[in-house]
Amino acid sequence: MSQFINKKEDIVQEAIDGVIANSGGRLARLDGYPHIRVLVRNDWDKSKVALVSGGGSGHEPAHAGFVGEGMLTAAVCGDVFASPSVDAVLAGILAVTGEAGCVLIVKNYTGDRLNFGLAAERARAFGLKVEMVIVDDDIALPELPQARGVAGTVFVHKIAGALAENGASHEDVTAAAKRVIAGTKTIGMSLDTCTVPGAPKEDRIPDGKAELGLGIHGEAGVEQVDYSSAKDAMAKVVEKLKSEIDLNKEHVALLNNLGGASVLEMSVLSHELAQSEIAGSIKFTVGPAAMVTSLAMRGFSLSLFPANAEDVEALQAATPLAAWPGVNALAQVEVVDLPDGLKPIKPLASDHKETREFLTKCCELLIASEADLNALDAKSGDGDTGSTLAGASRALIKAMDRLPLADHTQLYRAIGQELSETMGGSSGVLLAIMFAAAGDAASSGMTMREALEAGLRRMQEIGGAKLGDRTMVDALDPALTALAEGLPKAAAAARAGANKTAEMLVAKAGRASYINADQLKGHVDPGAEAVARLFEELSV
Amino acid sequence: MSQFINKKEDIVQEAIDGVIANSGGRLARLDGYPHIRVLVRNDWDKSKVALVSGGGSGHEPAHAGFVGEGMLTAAVCGDVFASPSVDAVLAGILAVTGEAGCVLIVKNYTGDRLNFGLAAERARAFGLKVEMVIVDDDIALPELPQARGVAGTVFVHKIAGALAENGASHEDVTAAAKRVIAGTKTIGMSLDTCTVPGAPKEDRIPDGKAELGLGIHGEAGVEQVDYSSAKDAMAKVVEKLKSEIDLNKEHVALLNNLGGASVLEMSVLSHELAQSEIAGSIKFTVGPAAMVTSLAMRGFSLSLFPANAEDVEALQAATPLAAWPGVNALAQVEVVDLPDGLKPIKPLASDHKETREFLTKCCELLIASEADLNALDAKSGDGDTGSTLAGASRALIKAMDRLPLADHTQLYRAIGQELSETMGGSSGVLLAIMFAAAGDAASSGMTMREALEAGLRRMQEIGGAKLGDRTMVDALDPALTALAEGLPKAAAAARAGANKTAEMLVAKAGRASYINADQLKGHVDPGAEAVARLFEELSV
Repeated sequence: MSQFINKKEDIVQEAIDGVIANSGGRLARLDGYPHIRVLVRNDWDKSKVALVSGGGSGHEPAHAGFVGEGMLTAAVCGDVFASPSVDAVLAGILAVTGEAGCVLIVKNYTGDRLNFGLAAERARAFGLKVEMVIVDDDIALPELPQARGVAGTVFVHKIAGALAENGASHEDVTAAAKRVIAGTKTIGMSLDTCTVPGAPKEDRIPDGKAELGLGIHGEAGVEQVDYSSAKDAMAKVVEKLKSEIDLNKEHVALLNNLGGASVLEMSVLSHELAQSEIAGSIKFTVGPAAMVTSLAMRGFSLSLFPANAEDVEALQAATPLAAWPGVNALAQVEVVDLPDGLKPIKPLASDHKETREFLTKCCELLIASEADLNALDAKSGDGDTGSTLAGASRALIKAMDRLPLADHTQLYRAIGQELSETMGGSSGVLLAIMFAAAGDAASSGMTMREALEAGLRRMQEIGGAKLGDRTMVDALDPALTALAEGLPKAAAAARAGANKTAEMLVAKAGRASYINADQLKGHVDPGAEAVARLFEELSV
Repeated sequence: MSQFINKKEDIVQEAIDGVIANSGGRLARLDGYPHIRVLVRNDWDKSKVALVSGGGSGHEPAHAGFVGEGMLTAAVCGDVFASPSVDAVLAGILAVTGEAGCVLIVKNYTGDRLNFGLAAERARAFGLKVEMVIVDDDIALPELPQARGVAGTVFVHKIAGALAENGASHEDVTAAAKRVIAGTKTIGMSLDTCTVPGAPKEDRIPDGKAELGLGIHGEAGVEQVDYSSAKDAMAKVVEKLKSEIDLNKEHVALLNNLGGASVLEMSVLSHELAQSEIAGSIKFTVGPAAMVTSLAMRGFSLSLFPANAEDVEALQAATPLAAWPGVNALAQVEVVDLPDGLKPIKPLASDHKETREFLTKCCELLIASEADLNALDAKSGDGDTGSTLAGASRALIKAMDRLPLADHTQLYRAIGQELSETMGGSSGVLLAIMFAAAGDAASSGMTMREALEAGLRRMQEIGGAKLGDRTMVDALDPALTALAEGLPKAAAAARAGANKTAEMLVAKAGRASYINADQLKGHVDPGAEAVARLFEELSV
């Protein structure tokens, strides 16, 4: 599959430069491309303990995204899934380490241990205080003497980072980092493999299966398990973790997107975590967010850490880094009553002979036009305009006795409500909007003509149809304007407007916009025709 | 492909509950499941202008992730890619709107326009001040009378949100929202389609092609273009945008992950944007981040907005929302000189007859043992231990004249340096670490035995091998302990330790850890054998 990269060998340095470009000047890099790829804080004076992390790339935002105030001081970046060289690590250490010393935060992979380890020795030969802590939070392989370091690393970055930013001593930062590592447990699950740039995709996980207990380098999980749902996935992950932690302690849960799960899926997994067996042992959450990824792997990991009050404070400490999603108390879902007013206020029914006759006449005209309008619509649409209008008219006649016929302001709104409930489709909603807006206008004292014009404007605003777009607007707009000079003028204007639609070869709104010019030519728009017929009938 | 969901019809409500669970109590939802799915601020007193957005789901974090202080007041969530109902929108409006009024921020899709539009009319019937703004930032279809609303919507959320939070009037918030919409231009590109939950994946984009000008609902892009690289992708997107903007203005660029591009790829795209033809017209950046996604689509979009000083201030205003990635000045990549000290300090060469003879003797012994040690390693590893040690020994003999033989403290470090340069592999780095650490120890006044023990401890710490793990440690550790009682005792201890490795059936470190018990049984570890031979030779 294609990826948004250029040359494979340039990925890491281009990505670092991209991170720097978006850092607002907070970050810089060492002048060591292509072999030495080190991102450093640009506002660093070495007066505090420096934190250097890194390792292979492909885990972004780790670690470059965590360099900045309150977290890391430098990130040393290797190629995708490959450890950086001893020289690169040493360059990172020397660039940021002063008298306060430096702590290296290293994920437990042989290459990283060795290269960071030897670089630390070399740095110590310069008299620098350098400690190295090794993160081994993965619980997937309990038999493995050297557990891998995965997403729990972010707890170390944040807690040690907050302490260092606050001026804690080298000993205290190191001790805190070691304590966080000792307490952190992580396991991951994935539905698909990741695709390493330049390498073919490995299709290892069949449909209906997931891999449980995987690392962050595309290596296979410890086991393939049946996969049925997000609930099932979270239950399997929780089952592994719960025996590794003291359920009586209050934990921070870090929910990490391995890169390719959608934000929607991660929210569903969050919900499942909040419903899970161990939810009672979780007091705070970090994420869900992509923190330590495996390129774009469709998977997640869950890390648990029994934080004390000081740790929580460190996790809550401010940092400007967008890659750190913050920490929040795990909350019960608060449910608020629905507001009053969802059920439309039914206006008091009232009678008014002239209005009843007027409305009935309009409805009967539309019912009588059903076949004609359907036939017209069949030329440019789906042939149902007549039936839609006739159906709404029949419903309105039926509703006549409960309408506020004597209160014209209320009547507009009531007609709008009836249409929205009975007519369906876009046109029903649009007419409902027109009548509701006309009701608003009438209530502010406008005449019927003005109120209907205000309604039309609102309908156009929402529906988007302009004059000339080949809709009912082409008849209704000139008719309402001419209505100032009486019904016969309005009827003539409506007819002229409707007839013009037969010459409009591009429909710009409604379903006819999918129809080509040849099919439209010579046919009047059925909505405009209905309007013209209404005005013609009313004017005789 | 499997996804981390449960029942399709529950996705949206479970995802909303997930967002609330991680909100630290800042959010709540209306009691309207399953039909009304509205997320609201839980700390809202209606004294300020409310901002309500929403639409179909599948665009997370939009819009639920943007509800909170300084952004939205409520999000009304439809099914995946489907508009919410009029009732749902009305419930959202009524729940959060007070005298200050409400602004609806709606993306330009017919369903959303109609449902939000009618809900607005109904809300107005209650006397509420409700304005609706329609975001139409997509430039993919210049002929389309109704441009789509895509990721530029986030500019509206943030700028109108900051104004509303600051107590701006209904008119001012509405005007600002409309101004932002008028100025915002967006286009997207994708390398793959998205997979709608419950629907099969549409494989529409062949390898080597990308879709340019796509929406956020999986609909096909306006054109399929050749795809070769991230640089090419950004150039094509920029080409479309540059004719739509005034290049003399200073823009904010929002780089949006459509959901499935890796963080690494997004950083590469950021870099390309910073190098692009329009970089001079970009003063600030938002992202890269997933803001308005199309589920897990492997694509991105770029939005440009010519922000004035007030807009920038609004974009910079604080919000606790992790989904808002912040705004940063687009920075030139600052490059810092490499630190001094990367080239190892070459110690002054000096001669010392006994030391030269001692070292030479050790080296010659290892050279003579090459074949034996290789044969032993062939039983449990890759058969090269003898050659590795012999090669390093030959190199050390050659280097003898430039070693500081008369300064034992420096000598340890120099040997470590030589080994790291000539020996290669993990064992070379580990021995380099041991000798470097021994040098440190010697410089603090320890005896040779103590210094080597300190080196051994550091090597074990980094390499992870413990006593009994079937490595050279099993001979070296007891030998150094016994060395306090003289060389013969040390030699005996080394031999006993080496021999014990033949009974160790599980190797816990190094390459032999991949070998099974039957293959290990009865064979001495070659590293341990080398150590035993060295001590035996030195003691005679």
